[in-house]
Amino acid sequence: MSASCAENRQVRLAARPHGEPTPADWRVSTEPVPEAGEGEFVVRVSHISIDPTIRGWMNGGKGYMAPVGIGDVMRALGAGMVIASRHSGFSPGQHVTGMFGVQEYALSDGDGVVEVDIDTAPLSTHLHALGMTGMTAYFGLFDIGRAKRGDTVLVSGAAGAVGSMVGQLARIHRCRVVGIAGGPSKCSWLTDELGFDAAVDYRDSEFSRALRAATPDGVDVYFDNVGGVLLDTGLARLRRGARVVLSGAISQYNNPDGRPAGPRNYLNLIFQRARMEGFVVLDYADRYGEAATRIAGWLRSGELQSREDVVIGGVDDFPATLMRLFRGENLGKVVLELT
Amino acid sequence: MSASCAENRQVRLAARPHGEPTPADWRVSTEPVPEAGEGEFVVRVSHISIDPTIRGWMNGGKGYMAPVGIGDVMRALGAGMVIASRHSGFSPGQHVTGMFGVQEYALSDGDGVVEVDIDTAPLSTHLHALGMTGMTAYFGLFDIGRAKRGDTVLVSGAAGAVGSMVGQLARIHRCRVVGIAGGPSKCSWLTDELGFDAAVDYRDSEFSRALRAATPDGVDVYFDNVGGVLLDTGLARLRRGARVVLSGAISQYNNPDGRPAGPRNYLNLIFQRARMEGFVVLDYADRYGEAATRIAGWLRSGELQSREDVVIGGVDDFPATLMRLFRGENLGKVVLELT
Repeated sequence: MSASCAENRQVRLAARPHGEPTPADWRVSTEPVPEAGEGEFVVRVSHISIDPTIRGWMNGGKGYMAPVGIGDVMRALGAGMVIASRHSGFSPGQHVTGMFGVQEYALSDGDGVVEVDIDTAPLSTHLHALGMTGMTAYFGLFDIGRAKRGDTVLVSGAAGAVGSMVGQLARIHRCRVVGIAGGPSKCSWLTDELGFDAAVDYRDSEFSRALRAATPDGVDVYFDNVGGVLLDTGLARLRRGARVVLSGAISQYNNPDGRPAGPRNYLNLIFQRARMEGFVVLDYADRYGEAATRIAGWLRSGELQSREDVVIGGVDDFPATLMRLFRGENLGKVVLELT
Repeated sequence: MSASCAENRQVRLAARPHGEPTPADWRVSTEPVPEAGEGEFVVRVSHISIDPTIRGWMNGGKGYMAPVGIGDVMRALGAGMVIASRHSGFSPGQHVTGMFGVQEYALSDGDGVVEVDIDTAPLSTHLHALGMTGMTAYFGLFDIGRAKRGDTVLVSGAAGAVGSMVGQLARIHRCRVVGIAGGPSKCSWLTDELGFDAAVDYRDSEFSRALRAATPDGVDVYFDNVGGVLLDTGLARLRRGARVVLSGAISQYNNPDGRPAGPRNYLNLIFQRARMEGFVVLDYADRYGEAATRIAGWLRSGELQSREDVVIGGVDDFPATLMRLFRGENLGKVVLELT
């Protein structure tokens, strides 16, 4: 297929949601497939990375990145193949990942674009274990959380993309790993398939008691992807000198006033001489190679599973696919694979 | 005066307050002055350290120390003179500080008791700049906050005991220092007497705007003694890589449900790659000497002021004196000096 005779279907932000997004917050537009100018190339996007952080980019306030403008193509990580290039570093046929947006074709100058090897792993895995999700888990757990052998590591959103990576990396690192997830089947997956030492169902009425039982000596590292009640519950389990890694707060992103609940147990950080620290994985770009090499090794040896929850469809399936995250319907990393 | 023929008036915890304490939460009792057994000594207490943390010790829940039991002598730091001793390390006539409680005479085995030199500074200063308050400011600012030259340091409760020390230590360390305090006279004291670069009145309707103006480039270290709205306001001012030092939350200790408000701006810790960390000064006991030596030098040179707000009275003035803290009536460190 030539780039010049096809159409490019795109999802653009139409409105800033208050609370839970609805399909009306986006619109699908069509424009000609872009032509590569000097120093540019065109990617045919085959996989779109569906991440909780996308919700934050829809807001007008400041975050770790500028908001997506109304009318702009929705920002998203993705993977695909170069189909045309006037860039010295990229050639047609190469597979790449980058911030390509929710569209079928992306024009790029190479900024933040990485070539990936589909013989090593499928493209969806390059968006997960070998991509930003794996990087987030790796640097959050080891650099911010300073997890060390023998530590008890608690992770919320444990059956999600980042959480399932964090737990497995901690297990490989010989930590004791406890996951928090919603529902018995997710919990079984964590213990039976991913090797977590324990998994606790936050939807169960006995959740707090079960968490205490699963962490009898407290928690050295709490990797929080969820916020809200689960952050507070985890803060109450901290052991002396614990590290709370703030990765996200998926339970709070759709609050009607746009603000998360604050963790009322935060004074436990004093009592337990503990810290709570945030990070943005993009800061670790110069060390992605280190992490990817180790993660690729663990994938090869079978110690690590990269579970992708692939939805096959078109760009117009983006809103519904994104909302699966907020309903906790996914197991592992959600990827929208374009037909 | 002999220890054996006098009475010892004591303040004992009578009830655990819900919300703001009232005088009925304590009762004054009288017993004979204790006799020193083998390995013990008796201190005539002359100064009682009035600290926000006392409020936490009245609660039944866990903190960094066990609660004071109902019926027990109220826990407090104090200073006084040894009047009788059967302990090889302490002799009558020595001046000491320690956890002597709210009473006129304390029996001690020497645990946590430190001899102090009243030629260096008056006893009240040994409870403040040269005592636990100074240690809290020093280790919180430098070890937890990692304040370095040129940093912007924001401190809440800046006209209080710990806050006034933190701001001065930061100024001596060549940081830019901004204090938050209640009312124009406290703010003037901070800038005119203590050398703060700016002070912002949280009671002013223009507080948020004034804080933004006083911290145009954001904040590198936020030393929070207050919690609540001021913690949230400070979190919104963090600069990349900032450190939030959790020292206390005086605005929250009397909440009716006994729990603080959680900081709703905590996700700014992610956006700014920042951390929030608690500490307990008691963990630094083996380094008090280092801090005290440096602080004594700054007191001698006049670079540092140890302002004590001394109330003269009896142990029965303890409840009213403690409550001055929560009403923000004090300037510097509150000390109850027993007549």
